[in-house]
Formats: sequence, C-alpha cells, structure tokens
Amino acid sequence: VSAQIPAVSRDLKELDVVIVGLGLMGASLAGALRGRCRAVRGIARRQETLQIASERGLVDEGTLHLESGVRDADVVVLATPVGVILSLLDEIGPLLPEGCIVVDMGSTKSQIVSRMERLPGHIQPLGGHPMCGKEVSGIEAAEPSIFNGCTFVLTPLKRTSDDTLSLVCALVAAVGANPLELDAQRHDRLVATISHLPYLLACALVRTAAHAAGEDATIWDVASSGFRDTSRLAASDVTMMLDILMTNQDAVLDALEICELQTRSLAGLIRSVDKDALRNMLTRIRAIRAEYD
Amino acid sequence: VSAQIPAVSRDLKELDVVIVGLGLMGASLAGALRGRCRAVRGIARRQETLQIASERGLVDEGTLHLESGVRDADVVVLATPVGVILSLLDEIGPLLPEGCIVVDMGSTKSQIVSRMERLPGHIQPLGGHPMCGKEVSGIEAAEPSIFNGCTFVLTPLKRTSDDTLSLVCALVAAVGANPLELDAQRHDRLVATISHLPYLLACALVRTAAHAAGEDATIWDVASSGFRDTSRLAASDVTMMLDILMTNQDAVLDALEICELQTRSLAGLIRSVDKDALRNMLTRIRAIRAEYD
Repeated sequence: VSAQIPAVSRDLKELDVVIVGLGLMGASLAGALRGRCRAVRGIARRQETLQIASERGLVDEGTLHLESGVRDADVVVLATPVGVILSLLDEIGPLLPEGCIVVDMGSTKSQIVSRMERLPGHIQPLGGHPMCGKEVSGIEAAEPSIFNGCTFVLTPLKRTSDDTLSLVCALVAAVGANPLELDAQRHDRLVATISHLPYLLACALVRTAAHAAGEDATIWDVASSGFRDTSRLAASDVTMMLDILMTNQDAVLDALEICELQTRSLAGLIRSVDKDALRNMLTRIRAIRAEYD
Repeated sequence: VSAQIPAVSRDLKELDVVIVGLGLMGASLAGALRGRCRAVRGIARRQETLQIASERGLVDEGTLHLESGVRDADVVVLATPVGVILSLLDEIGPLLPEGCIVVDMGSTKSQIVSRMERLPGHIQPLGGHPMCGKEVSGIEAAEPSIFNGCTFVLTPLKRTSDDTLSLVCALVAAVGANPLELDAQRHDRLVATISHLPYLLACALVRTAAHAAGEDATIWDVASSGFRDTSRLAASDVTMMLDILMTNQDAVLDALEICELQTRSLAGLIRSVDKDALRNMLTRIRAIRAEYD
C-alpha cells in the first residue's frame, strides 16, 4: 500500500479533533491521536463511556452533547455504526464551523459518501475506513495501537479539497496506518468479498454446526481451533454488521454467489472422486493463501 | 468432555511406544510421551526428520525401518495422513508381536476402523483422533503441549479389549488430552461439519478472493484479520486434507449442502431487506458462537 501524502498546510498540533462515538474504533482512534493534536474530544451517548475514556486517558475531554461538542472542531470523525453515521450526516452540517473537516470510519462507503454530498458547502467531507478491527466491540476493547500497519481507506468526494485529503492522510499516518485512496463504489465491492463474505461464511458455519448439534450435541466436544478461527467473525457486533449488509447489499450478494460457485466446484470434485483435479485445486488455493500471509 | 478411565493393568512406564510418522502430530505425541513410557521410538521416511526428532529430544530412538522399528513394540501409533495409514494397516500386521496395540491418529475413522478389522487376531487395534492441530505441518511445527486440554476421540472395534481401551485412555490422559469414546461413523459425521466444512469454506473464500483479485488486485491491500482468520485453514497440508475429503465424502457433501442452505437463507434476508428477521438471525448466531468460546 502506498499513497503520496502531499505537504500539509496545517500542523496536526493545531487541530481540535472531535470523535463522535467512543466504541472500539472511535476510542482507539482517540487514544492514538491524543497528544498528537491540540485536543481530542470524545462524544458518547452514555456517561459511563465518557468515564472509561477519561480513566484510560483516551480523550482530553468528553461530552454527551453533540452540538456543543462539535462547535469548535477542526476535524470531526464519525465513528458509529453506518446507520448512525447516515443519520448524523443529516443533522450535523449546521452545527459545524466554517471549513470543518468531516471524516467517518464506517465499513461501507457509497451511501455515506452520497449522504456527505448533501452537507452544507462550508464543510469539507471525506469518507474513511480503517481495515482493522476485532470481533469484540465497545470501548473496553479499545486499543490505540490497532491502526499500526493497517490500510486506512480514504474515499474523497469531488468537493474534497487537496488540503483536506492531505491533512487526513497525515492524521492517518500519525496513528501508524497507511492511507489508500479509493473510489467509494470500488471500496464497497472489494470489502464485500474480503470482509463481509468472511462474516457471512462464519455465520453459515455456526448455523450448520448448530443444526448438526441439534442431532448430536457431542459436536461441540470435537470442535477445535479450525472451527474457532473460521467462525470467529460470527461473534461480531450485530448492529454494525446489519448496517454493513444493508448498505452493501448488491456487492455482498454478488460475492455470496461467486463463493457458492467455488464451493460447488469443490463439491463437484469431491463427489466425482477426481483426486488429481482436487489436489491441483487445493494446492493452488494453498499457494494463494500462503502468499497472503 | 468426560470419559471413565478404567484401571490400567500395565504401568505406562513399562511400555515401548513406537510412532510411525514424525510429522506435526506424530512428533508432538512422541515428545509428549517421552519420559512417561519406557521408550518412545520414532519411524520416519527421511534421515533428516530423525535427526530433528533427536536434536529436539522428541524421541528416545529413531529408525527408517518399519520392520525392525515395530518388532518389540507394546503400542504402535500410526501418525501419517489417512491414505498412508490405510496402506500401513495392510502390511503391518505380520510385523507386530503378540498382543501389540495399534492405534492411529487419522482425521477420519470409518475406513481406518474397517481396515483395522482385517488385522491378524494377535493384534489389538483401536482408532484415535486428537481434536487439535495447526495449519502448518511437519516436525518443525511439533509441540508436545498441543494435546493439552484437547478432546482425543477413540473409536474402538468390537475386538478391542477393555484393557487396550483403558491403556490408550491412560496414554491420552498422560499427554493432557481428554479421551472421548465414539463410534467411527458418528465421529466422521461430526468432524465433517466441525472440521472439514471449515476447511472447504476457507478454500472457497480464498478462491472467491482470488477471483475478485483478478479484476482488482487492490483487494489484498484491504484484506484484514477477518479474512486472515476465516481463510487460515486453506493453508492446511494438501495431502492430509485430500485423504480426509476422499475418505469422508458423503458426510462432507452433506455438510456442504446444509451449509449452502444456511448461506442461502442469509442471502434471502439480505435480498429482501428484511432487517428485523436478519437481525434476529444474526443475534441467534452470535449467541451460539459466544457460548462456544
């Protein structure tokens, strides 16, 4: 992953960054940016979250109030599930100061970027998606080092200025991530296969195991690390995943269809006992997987 | 997992154990048993493997010769891929002393157990399968602690004596595993869903990603831990997996078919934008997965 980061007109140290949503990703970003910007403020729905954020030193300041929280922001980061990001984009415009940058961390980008188009002209919007995460959610799981070495996709709009893009690239680089500029539709197509499909396969595997367990519960006693790893994503936050699937339907359904063809071709070789062809296919697959690691 | 371990008539310290095949599982078992039995001997095809086994202190002795290697064994453990286990069972009988126990570590059991039926009457055969492993193979990956806390399935034959079963249970317990007695067909049915299906889903995922990469190679830059974990099993040893699939065809194809139905029902809810039903399903799946961990 490489991205040219143009010269930044403003020092990060001059920036007031406000993060809306202090879950796993928002709180991790807050902690990673804290000390690198003038101030990192967090906005959460619950007092308890603000208290944890403050106790763990993830934010300089926290508030429950969106309006006062974003009033003086240089950069606002929307770090909620995609559905809430879309709602926030409908209401946040008038609350933001002139030239304010709005970037998000949602897992799908097309709908978010088109909603960003509607923001008032004095706002500088930009889509974002860090390619990291855990299957656990919430501020308890926050980890400022989570961005280290990960790709951080940025999906600029036509109206996004070079200055905005370069400043956000600098913020992304400051937390250890590698910025990668992509068109929103292209992003959504890629993550449908590489991220949303794995989640759905994990879910289908868990349902198949539960189905088998209905006939013979001993199956859980013979489950091992293979099942654990392959099904891990099925433990992901449901609201987050639901929003993702509902805002990336077509690409997700395409990925599922292609995957079904692959599964069927494997099943066909098993059924026909075509050992040589199956060996060739499994060997090719293993080589591709080995290259990825 | 629980298993009643009957009193053992012989002390493990009196046993000469011979392990045929010093790959990941065989070498790990050798290392775990060494010091707990009178002697642990290893039989390998390559001198290099014997040297590593000896350097790493995994065996008391090693040899390349099956015939002389098993001549005085009390227990012979077949720890090769399933296909080689089947061939070994055809030739090993006449080489073994009176009362010798033959147990294997193959990942499918029905074909192995029926091949064991044909062993000469002076042999005591028993099927075995430790539910642990790694996607890496070979003696380099051996780890005597790998059996700690894992379920070790034992599939006795009608001719298997109680003494044999209890002695092997004691060996299994000695390496930290929990013995679980199962019928061979039942074992194969369970692992088709919980172990072989995850492998095939991982393979289908890698093929789908490779297909998408053919259109846009940037997909590898946005791959993250979700893809890595879900596809991990696709890096498994091909010969081992091929033997498994070819000796558990029917159960594997059944598991694939049920999984396809699960995937389709998820796709159906996504397609129909039935958000409530999808939320319910994903929530149930998440709860099942959470209970497993």
